[in-house]
Amino acid sequence: MVEIIIAPNAGFCFGVKRAVKLAEESSDLIKEGIRVFTLGPIIHNPQEVGRLKEKGIKPIGEEGPQRGDAVIIRSHGIPPERERELREHGFKVIDATCPYVKAVHEAVCQLTKEGYFIVLVGERNHPEVIGTLGYLKECGGRGIVVESMDDLKEALNKERVGVVSQTTQNERFLKEVVGELSLWVKELKVINTICNATSVRQEDVYSLAPSVDVMIIIGGKNSGNTRRLYSISKSLNENSYHIETEEEVDPSWFEGVKKVGITAGASTPDWIINRVKDKIEEICAGLSQSCSSSAR
Amino acid sequence: MVEIIIAPNAGFCFGVKRAVKLAEESSDLIKEGIRVFTLGPIIHNPQEVGRLKEKGIKPIGEEGPQRGDAVIIRSHGIPPERERELREHGFKVIDATCPYVKAVHEAVCQLTKEGYFIVLVGERNHPEVIGTLGYLKECGGRGIVVESMDDLKEALNKERVGVVSQTTQNERFLKEVVGELSLWVKELKVINTICNATSVRQEDVYSLAPSVDVMIIIGGKNSGNTRRLYSISKSLNENSYHIETEEEVDPSWFEGVKKVGITAGASTPDWIINRVKDKIEEICAGLSQSCSSSAR
Repeated sequence: MVEIIIAPNAGFCFGVKRAVKLAEESSDLIKEGIRVFTLGPIIHNPQEVGRLKEKGIKPIGEEGPQRGDAVIIRSHGIPPERERELREHGFKVIDATCPYVKAVHEAVCQLTKEGYFIVLVGERNHPEVIGTLGYLKECGGRGIVVESMDDLKEALNKERVGVVSQTTQNERFLKEVVGELSLWVKELKVINTICNATSVRQEDVYSLAPSVDVMIIIGGKNSGNTRRLYSISKSLNENSYHIETEEEVDPSWFEGVKKVGITAGASTPDWIINRVKDKIEEICAGLSQSCSSSAR
Repeated sequence: MVEIIIAPNAGFCFGVKRAVKLAEESSDLIKEGIRVFTLGPIIHNPQEVGRLKEKGIKPIGEEGPQRGDAVIIRSHGIPPERERELREHGFKVIDATCPYVKAVHEAVCQLTKEGYFIVLVGERNHPEVIGTLGYLKECGGRGIVVESMDDLKEALNKERVGVVSQTTQNERFLKEVVGELSLWVKELKVINTICNATSVRQEDVYSLAPSVDVMIIIGGKNSGNTRRLYSISKSLNENSYHIETEEEVDPSWFEGVKKVGITAGASTPDWIINRVKDKIEEICAGLSQSCSSSAR
């Protein structure tokens, strides 16, 4: 008998749910003849993006918006100068920036006002980080992005350092950065902006991965938070697999397996998680194993 | 000609030197007929305490001060209510509290004013910590002493935590505490109040040892901080020697030598350093080398 356990916090976070909802609500504009575009894929999930496309909501691509069209800012947020440009072009701006990301924008400006040099713990090329750096610049602040401990050098000789983090940052790395900084700078202020959704999803993996035979991580191959879930899982359980859809599920993974864990990144809709679960149950049946799944 | 260079930060730290100096200056009061007492041994060195006793400056013990006598507060500091009591008893108070310890008193009150719950990283029964807690109480603050990670629990559910540390706190433990806190509390402010006396003594050795022919490290053979100075020195200069007193100085170390470096651990009074210097000069004279010593 194979048991399938879906992690309690798998899938969409609050900010993504909200962005998708705002996108869906923009269908009303389409009915009024206004075209709706998203600034890049609204979530890191091609399937969900495809579903919205069918409703007429598509990422800016070959086709671009014209004056009067609506443009949706994704949950990641954008730099303020970019938002101004959109408005100057005459687009109707729908701001789906995650409120937790807005809190990071506010935090860097608050810390700047208080005279701190900013350390933004995150990935240099991540849209969220690019957006936050835009706000830092806007409010006249100075700071650096810290992606590895090496990047920290530039902050060590500062007297007063303020730390914030990308909302989807790995907690252990933030902890390492903050600990090290505390020994170097005279005054350190940390506003922990890691979104709880990310940490609870990561905690799920820490507790689930070691207790199952196979661990399945669902989410975009280009999604940083999903890749981190996968790397945590892989470090705890060799039989960890990162897939985007049920089509990648390989029957050979489940031979002789008794317990399967599933989790999914923040951009993975429930309907994909359910399809993966169904596929695994089907495989188990084919392998003449009796499958059971735990509701989350 | 042999040059003897004493490291700038050899021996007692700034705060202890200052306390001993203030004690010595109080001899003037003794001449005026005022008795002088210290609140506990002014330093952890029986020889040095004995030397001051001969000048009439003794720790409060069998004999206590009377109204009009002088009382010296040691470098560790004391709670403000205790200081008030001393004044109310009519004692002349000489405050030899280390300025770096005063900075901790100020830090807990500043953080309290800013609304933080205080985490004081240090030893619960250390006189410095007892003094700092007195200041925390005085300015209406709330907080805890963290001696082990277990103690931290009470702070983890707080929204805003301000961290300071005992001046002689181990850096690695502070780092661990701060790292952990950063993941739990919404806003963390750290004022690093660890005194850099230990690290500057080590820096001295890094710069002095490679530039001399012989390096002498003075301090207890059982003193961790002295042994660390010795091991740093030995790694940079093969001719490094760890001694406790001038009696261990071996003339054979100085044959053909042009430059001698001396440093000492935190528990070594100046007069022991000077005796070692004198002994080396004596040896140089015996070796018909002309000796000179650099003042530090």
